[in-house]
Amino acid sequence: MSDFFTIRWSDSSVAMIDQRLLPHREAYRRYKSCEGVAGAIRSMVIRGAPAIGIAAGFGMALEARSIRTRDAGEFVDRMRAAGDMLVATRPTAINLAWAVRRVMALVEKHAPSGVDAARRLVLREARRIMREDEVANRRMGRRGALLFSKGSSVLTHCNAGALAVGAYGTAIGVIRAAHEAGRIKCVFVDETRPYLQGARLTAWELKKLGIPHFLITDSMAGHFMQRGEVDAVMTGADRIAANGDTANKIGTYSVAVLAKENRVPFFVAAPASTFDLSVPSGESIPVEERDPDEVCCAGGRRIAPHGTPARYPAFDVTPARYIAGIITEFGVLRPPFGVSIARVIPRQR
Amino acid sequence: MSDFFTIRWSDSSVAMIDQRLLPHREAYRRYKSCEGVAGAIRSMVIRGAPAIGIAAGFGMALEARSIRTRDAGEFVDRMRAAGDMLVATRPTAINLAWAVRRVMALVEKHAPSGVDAARRLVLREARRIMREDEVANRRMGRRGALLFSKGSSVLTHCNAGALAVGAYGTAIGVIRAAHEAGRIKCVFVDETRPYLQGARLTAWELKKLGIPHFLITDSMAGHFMQRGEVDAVMTGADRIAANGDTANKIGTYSVAVLAKENRVPFFVAAPASTFDLSVPSGESIPVEERDPDEVCCAGGRRIAPHGTPARYPAFDVTPARYIAGIITEFGVLRPPFGVSIARVIPRQR
Repeated sequence: MSDFFTIRWSDSSVAMIDQRLLPHREAYRRYKSCEGVAGAIRSMVIRGAPAIGIAAGFGMALEARSIRTRDAGEFVDRMRAAGDMLVATRPTAINLAWAVRRVMALVEKHAPSGVDAARRLVLREARRIMREDEVANRRMGRRGALLFSKGSSVLTHCNAGALAVGAYGTAIGVIRAAHEAGRIKCVFVDETRPYLQGARLTAWELKKLGIPHFLITDSMAGHFMQRGEVDAVMTGADRIAANGDTANKIGTYSVAVLAKENRVPFFVAAPASTFDLSVPSGESIPVEERDPDEVCCAGGRRIAPHGTPARYPAFDVTPARYIAGIITEFGVLRPPFGVSIARVIPRQR
Repeated sequence: MSDFFTIRWSDSSVAMIDQRLLPHREAYRRYKSCEGVAGAIRSMVIRGAPAIGIAAGFGMALEARSIRTRDAGEFVDRMRAAGDMLVATRPTAINLAWAVRRVMALVEKHAPSGVDAARRLVLREARRIMREDEVANRRMGRRGALLFSKGSSVLTHCNAGALAVGAYGTAIGVIRAAHEAGRIKCVFVDETRPYLQGARLTAWELKKLGIPHFLITDSMAGHFMQRGEVDAVMTGADRIAANGDTANKIGTYSVAVLAKENRVPFFVAAPASTFDLSVPSGESIPVEERDPDEVCCAGGRRIAPHGTPARYPAFDVTPARYIAGIITEFGVLRPPFGVSIARVIPRQR
């Protein structure tokens, strides 16, 4: 799958595939300012919790390059403002705030002894965030693949593939590794309304990877579980609280309830950067509300009568009790998650 | 809501609003042959279990008019062939077979004593089926409305309104009556992918009726229940087995499971014609599979990569254990449904 990339630093700028145009067009956009990157995140050119964390890192690197001052205090202040702007673009995924915090810790530490050096360190850190993410994904893949027995059918919601991260994928990474190990019979792909990340992005990735799959509407997931056609569910995450409650794309909670009701194990695959140990439970995770008009449209066309009121919470929270395991780069966490998360996930990196 | 009609007999033909064009265009089609009506059912000009039962009755009336023979045996044979054609158009909703059976019982009884009289009786019976359906709907409305307390928010899936019946509506009929009684705060309308009956038809009807509503994607139903914003779920049905297992639009099962998990009562509203006492449980109800390409499209546009395999079961079966009550013209049936159905629903009408 080397024929596309999600995000890349090159030539003093950040290039991203424009995910809004997939699967119909593969076009890349290039950003030379932090404002540009923030706009790309806000307008969904790039999405997926780890991917927008990586984008934020590069956004900070662009900002660092653009600040001409040699005054450490001013440099830190302006970097902090840029970080705040990035964090404000999307409230639910924690990776954004995590990446900004990582960069800012470095800035605050090194700027006083030299702005130029701090500037270089910011880019190095952004690249490191991206590299570490890929390593984490591949580790999750290897560990997660062992959860499947031969001939497994797995259902996934939204897109937690290479497009949602720097490279490889979280949930799709696990499915990919399991497929390479000869264990995947078929992937059920929830289309994931209203933004259709499943139909547009996951189906596109699975086709490129040659992994057998079926596209279904979100409303069919329960039916196929009821009929015994689904052996496991595997999704990504946007933020995981200290007790294991998991915020992810709207509809994930429903899939998790249906999985439990049908005794199908429900797994989450997410790197340590997706955990937010400052949040005790899912109730404190902010759920982003997006433009309800997106619900009134599908495939770019209006489907409902003009003036139809709609609602669009973009995420939901799956309580930990529905989750059979969380696959991280440090291994598969099992309930009780309060204990397993505290043991394995580093506090405030 | 007298500014449209779903189906009407007039001028020796059947007129129907073309539901495929809603909500963007209100256009009517006129059919003068049973083949035409069968085509209209097959291509979804008309849909909704009671509505296609009514259409089948009128289709039989058109057939009876077109058969020129005075030979009773030939008349019966050709009527039976027409009935078989109608029943074959859509396999899940039982109202189709029920209406054809009702008409055929009359034909078989009266044709031997005169084909002309039998012909007239067929049209009378078709009209009666439609009239009885409206009476049943209004009764269901009155009885069902009592289930709601003031300020209730109710969630519905697919379209079980006036467009799904002869007039008034089953689930939406109940909601309508409850609204008139001042008990409805808001209706959550599942968009109901892939055919979008909720977004296209239910939102259109509720707007005309002036009932407050929100359109949501199917994947959001669970989230709003989890947040305590839904007081009850109310759907229609395509076929109800003797034990209460209920086949309805794909996604209904998921809504029912989510309702149970969140202690939200899940109700079905359906006239006696929707019960199939010859079927002991839901397992024996055939689930129609429709063109999977519809899943790859939304709003008339392709959303998935070309060549994406998809699946499209058009219905699912909700086991009786998830159902709090079934609202019929004979009252609200309660569990255990095997007992309450046997007591109230007439055998083989």
